[in-house]
Amino acid sequence: MDKVFYNAQHSPIGAFASFTLGEKGPKGGFGLEIGKPADQNVYIALQSATEAGRFDFLPFFGAADGSLANYTAADIARQDNLVRTFEDEEITREYTLTTDTWRAGDLTFSIVSPVLSIPDPATASDAELQDVLLPAVFVELSVDNTKGKSARRVAFGFGSTDSQKDYALHYLRHHHGELNVLNGVGQGRNLALVALNGKVGARVGFDLEAILLPNEEPTTSLGGCAALVSSVPAGEKTTLRFAVCFHREGIVTTGLDASYLYTRWWKSARDVAKYALKHHERLVDLWRVPSTALLKSPKLTDDQLYQLVHTIHSYYGSTQLLQLVDGTPFWIVNEGEYRMINTLDLVIDHCFFELTMNPWTVKNNLDAYANTHSYYDKVRDPANAKVLLDGGVSFTHDMGVANHISPPGHSVYERPDLTDCFSYMTCEQLTNWILTSSMYVSHTQDKEFVSRRLSLFKDCLASLANRDHPDPQKRTGVMQCNAARTGGGAEITTYDSLDASLGQATENAYIGGKCWASYLALEKLLADAGDTSLASLARDQAARAAATITGSVDPKTGLLPAIMHLDPPHPARIIPAIEALVYPRFTGREDALAEDGPYGAYVKALGVHLHEVLKPGVCLFDSGAWKLSSTSTNSWLSKTYLCQYVARAILNTPQDPKADRAHVEWLTDREKNNSYWAWSDQIIDHIAQGSKYYPRGVTSILWCMESSK
Amino acid sequence: MDKVFYNAQHSPIGAFASFTLGEKGPKGGFGLEIGKPADQNVYIALQSATEAGRFDFLPFFGAADGSLANYTAADIARQDNLVRTFEDEEITREYTLTTDTWRAGDLTFSIVSPVLSIPDPATASDAELQDVLLPAVFVELSVDNTKGKSARRVAFGFGSTDSQKDYALHYLRHHHGELNVLNGVGQGRNLALVALNGKVGARVGFDLEAILLPNEEPTTSLGGCAALVSSVPAGEKTTLRFAVCFHREGIVTTGLDASYLYTRWWKSARDVAKYALKHHERLVDLWRVPSTALLKSPKLTDDQLYQLVHTIHSYYGSTQLLQLVDGTPFWIVNEGEYRMINTLDLVIDHCFFELTMNPWTVKNNLDAYANTHSYYDKVRDPANAKVLLDGGVSFTHDMGVANHISPPGHSVYERPDLTDCFSYMTCEQLTNWILTSSMYVSHTQDKEFVSRRLSLFKDCLASLANRDHPDPQKRTGVMQCNAARTGGGAEITTYDSLDASLGQATENAYIGGKCWASYLALEKLLADAGDTSLASLARDQAARAAATITGSVDPKTGLLPAIMHLDPPHPARIIPAIEALVYPRFTGREDALAEDGPYGAYVKALGVHLHEVLKPGVCLFDSGAWKLSSTSTNSWLSKTYLCQYVARAILNTPQDPKADRAHVEWLTDREKNNSYWAWSDQIIDHIAQGSKYYPRGVTSILWCMESSK
Repeated sequence: MDKVFYNAQHSPIGAFASFTLGEKGPKGGFGLEIGKPADQNVYIALQSATEAGRFDFLPFFGAADGSLANYTAADIARQDNLVRTFEDEEITREYTLTTDTWRAGDLTFSIVSPVLSIPDPATASDAELQDVLLPAVFVELSVDNTKGKSARRVAFGFGSTDSQKDYALHYLRHHHGELNVLNGVGQGRNLALVALNGKVGARVGFDLEAILLPNEEPTTSLGGCAALVSSVPAGEKTTLRFAVCFHREGIVTTGLDASYLYTRWWKSARDVAKYALKHHERLVDLWRVPSTALLKSPKLTDDQLYQLVHTIHSYYGSTQLLQLVDGTPFWIVNEGEYRMINTLDLVIDHCFFELTMNPWTVKNNLDAYANTHSYYDKVRDPANAKVLLDGGVSFTHDMGVANHISPPGHSVYERPDLTDCFSYMTCEQLTNWILTSSMYVSHTQDKEFVSRRLSLFKDCLASLANRDHPDPQKRTGVMQCNAARTGGGAEITTYDSLDASLGQATENAYIGGKCWASYLALEKLLADAGDTSLASLARDQAARAAATITGSVDPKTGLLPAIMHLDPPHPARIIPAIEALVYPRFTGREDALAEDGPYGAYVKALGVHLHEVLKPGVCLFDSGAWKLSSTSTNSWLSKTYLCQYVARAILNTPQDPKADRAHVEWLTDREKNNSYWAWSDQIIDHIAQGSKYYPRGVTSILWCMESSK
Repeated sequence: MDKVFYNAQHSPIGAFASFTLGEKGPKGGFGLEIGKPADQNVYIALQSATEAGRFDFLPFFGAADGSLANYTAADIARQDNLVRTFEDEEITREYTLTTDTWRAGDLTFSIVSPVLSIPDPATASDAELQDVLLPAVFVELSVDNTKGKSARRVAFGFGSTDSQKDYALHYLRHHHGELNVLNGVGQGRNLALVALNGKVGARVGFDLEAILLPNEEPTTSLGGCAALVSSVPAGEKTTLRFAVCFHREGIVTTGLDASYLYTRWWKSARDVAKYALKHHERLVDLWRVPSTALLKSPKLTDDQLYQLVHTIHSYYGSTQLLQLVDGTPFWIVNEGEYRMINTLDLVIDHCFFELTMNPWTVKNNLDAYANTHSYYDKVRDPANAKVLLDGGVSFTHDMGVANHISPPGHSVYERPDLTDCFSYMTCEQLTNWILTSSMYVSHTQDKEFVSRRLSLFKDCLASLANRDHPDPQKRTGVMQCNAARTGGGAEITTYDSLDASLGQATENAYIGGKCWASYLALEKLLADAGDTSLASLARDQAARAAATITGSVDPKTGLLPAIMHLDPPHPARIIPAIEALVYPRFTGREDALAEDGPYGAYVKALGVHLHEVLKPGVCLFDSGAWKLSSTSTNSWLSKTYLCQYVARAILNTPQDPKADRAHVEWLTDREKNNSYWAWSDQIIDHIAQGSKYYPRGVTSILWCMESSK
């Protein structure tokens, strides 16, 4: 990667916390439970070898620290003499799955964050869980002063730009009754920066001068600026290690009470810091190495690898492992800047990553949806929306937002009487639960889950068939009926901010594909469970869906319309028509992908469609970037990654590497401010305009499986 | 009061919370543990009687609510048609100690907050404490639709302008396992607005339209805008009542662990809301009437009464009643915008109010300082600062900042090697502890406290005498020696941001007066305890102090210099030279104020000094406002109030009511933004530039005691 200045999230697992760093200016810092960077100054500085009165800083600051004091012009001028920022050309960056390292002059700054499988809390020991769930990231600050003629001071700290939070800065060594046990600075009860080795002093002050100049360590802690400082003797090399500890105690949710699971072991940020102090040598070694072989040596291009790494960093930044008051684990992935909880149309996209890393979290989500966020409703007759017909079970769009758990059977997102954003996604969420469950079962062979949820699977089949049409004579295999809950509106799809090509659910080729894959998955699941009659219904529906979609292809062009059965035909072409081909592979239905099998015509038709749309002016931008819909400039990288896998690994469609290059350019564009948001999903005309700071990009894990299947 | 638009804090007692309202625009709202208004939109609206499609709002909003959605021009135009703001002339306001009421058209909006004595937790029942400490304020919204031809909708709500906090809005009725128990909206775990009567619906949405238009109550809770809405039938009058409930659970401090005392009874904002729901009829009646006769019928001018009311509102906004982990109550008054904890030079000024309301909190502060925030140090020889001499005990400037308790024996404020702001206040804090203790003992006759602290009182006397000079031959009764802790600096006084006239502590006429009053108080206390020898030392020192100060008066002008013993004489004249005359009255030493007593010459000299300085160009601004120092334009209202009392009630100096008028004009100036900060202390050239949103103004309680002594 030639780019150096872009934000990346560096996060503990399940702490909904991030030490975000990389964009220039006061654009990173320590964020807890926020869907954006903390916008703090981060100070990483080394005293100059040639000018003792000057410090060279990495360029991660620039705003005034909130503070009680007002400064004179003389103060500011003095500070300016003290501070020099490294030139861009002096700085290199090495960004990997578990480390992010900046080098400039004699300074090396590195953040270590874990990419480890979380053991299942139902069976794992406390010690096993603690090593993975410690809500901290490690920082290493190395100085090479072997050529230096005098000792040089070095600092790692931050300036809070929130004038109220500022005041809560304090020294960890000063806790009443526990003096000098920890060395570092804290901010309120949620953050502690603790020194783990070396001779380090802590500083809190109003400005950089107060923290950098060699005064005694003060007892006072007024000011918005804090740092850990040390001095490296002439002729020596030193590596200082720190832990950035996050913590939130007590019940943290509303709607349904839950606390962080890590509070089983750590009651405060101080507890986290003490654990880090005791175990850091072992933990840093453990954390440096990702726990999955898949992630260690993928055969990817540099542009692919960059995106894989970046998506995983942003994913962990959204993870939040809670427990209910009875101790039941509650796994949450927050929806990036939107903070919606376990959005089900993201759960299915995250599933490839989670089955690789933590299959138990997938079951946790599936059970949570089944227990509290499912509902039964009727459907509306497509011939007359006022007539309600038999429907069946489905699942809500999400389980809440921003630590608020939405009421049983309801999302915070879905509202009646709409035909676009914020309408219901009833049919798609039904397919999402079916497909995610089936992938989970196929991956784990968890018979207990199948047996416990068998009647729900049967209800799912009945509901999916009714959402085609309750009258078997009128069924086409794809979704035709809107949910009763839509009121006077109509269902939408996960692509809520695109135009009708991917927005309208009924007769949509994308939803049609997910119905087809769901029937296939249910067929296998029910057959394995011995219910041949229902398996047969599922198979018939799959066949109908394939036939319906294949029959909608324009025989002259080989193109499938986004919305079927319109006259004149709908003009839009969509890449995600192929998306659902991924599921047979992960639900034990590889057979359905065979070109000479019962669905061969369907698979082949999608291959032709893809070949025809992957052209500039249709579903490619001029840069080579993928354009999910021919009629919208809003393209989503998470889905692009998934469809790239389908194209290469299932449809054997070679791709121009220009696409990956163009996608990296999107993500790292500093002029458009995209680089501020770490990984973002919705890119509209080159600008990250929605789904920023987002977890969904881990569909990129599929790229690691291309040679293995 | 002719002014209508200024912020006032409306606060529970001891919850460090405020529903701030009154300044126009998005300048009020619900603040928890912040030293400033929350800057939210507050929506108080009534449907127009003449235009059904329009709502008339009080003018307390104006910023965009944080939100997930981006709006089209059409959305904004539609919203503009919906919203009309009452004209300034249509709005009246009635502001009392316990209520604040706005009237406009057919709408009346009132906030009820308590002014009650807190029973001593050591002896009071839970029920007694609960009625005073409920962390909530009540809101009443009345609509007179007797002349209306149709039902009119009415709303009370708010829009969060913090894009991250926004998302946490939710419906109280939707708690899993506790559905429909409460009706209202919450934000995270810290705030709940609950409806207590009437037929009220809750709304959360992206904009005003979503919360005002008569849709069904939604289940979704996305958006930054929330309200409680109702409808008043034609021909009817209705009063709706709500509670604004604040809550923070768990340990809330660092440095020394403590939680809110109210968590003994209420574990969450929901618990607070349930208590409010059950008891609101009784509580609102109880809260409307201040519990102290003194406050109910003071004989004050309107300008005085306005300031008394305003200072008490801001005082409660800074109060925070915590408990240590063993249940020991820990009374905190935060220092307004600075959030320093129990700043000792404020404790003494608050003492007149607290002895009237809650004497046990004074003891609580005194014991806390004695136990954890006192220290012993040497003093520096005034002839050679490098020589350390015997010193003695003193107390820290504060006990921490922003919920951080500073380490034992240290404040967060004081630093060595300074000669102005942030230097040590060792001598003044010693007098503050002595005088506050003595006022407490004089008011309560608490023999147990005296007996328990007798040796500390003796140490205080020894220390105070040594801070004059360790060599009895060199003593003058006033402070001459700086504390060793000042290093190469010098002690300052509470007036840290003024010039040397009130900044330098040694030889300062203001500090000299406090030394005099401290010796008098100790003389009585030690004599009452039977230690005639030490009492005699104290008396001698008091006599020396009086003689020294009296001897410093310029015999030609009758003026006392701010700093004594300088040649040529220091040019500054200060009103606070008279300040310490208040203490003999409150420490049982009224005898020392007699003009024919042993200190008669001193008292008379101060009377002459005051008469000479209370002139335009010396210690009066052109407006008639008081100017504490002739050489600084920074004047502090809290100290002005105190000195006004001394001038009238002790020195019998009549005052021009222009002063009070000018002080009210300062506080309510909207052009200078002073009115945003509720009550502020430091007014520099007409602008509230420091000590904003501040508790210290309750020295105004002294005005209520003028006729009674």
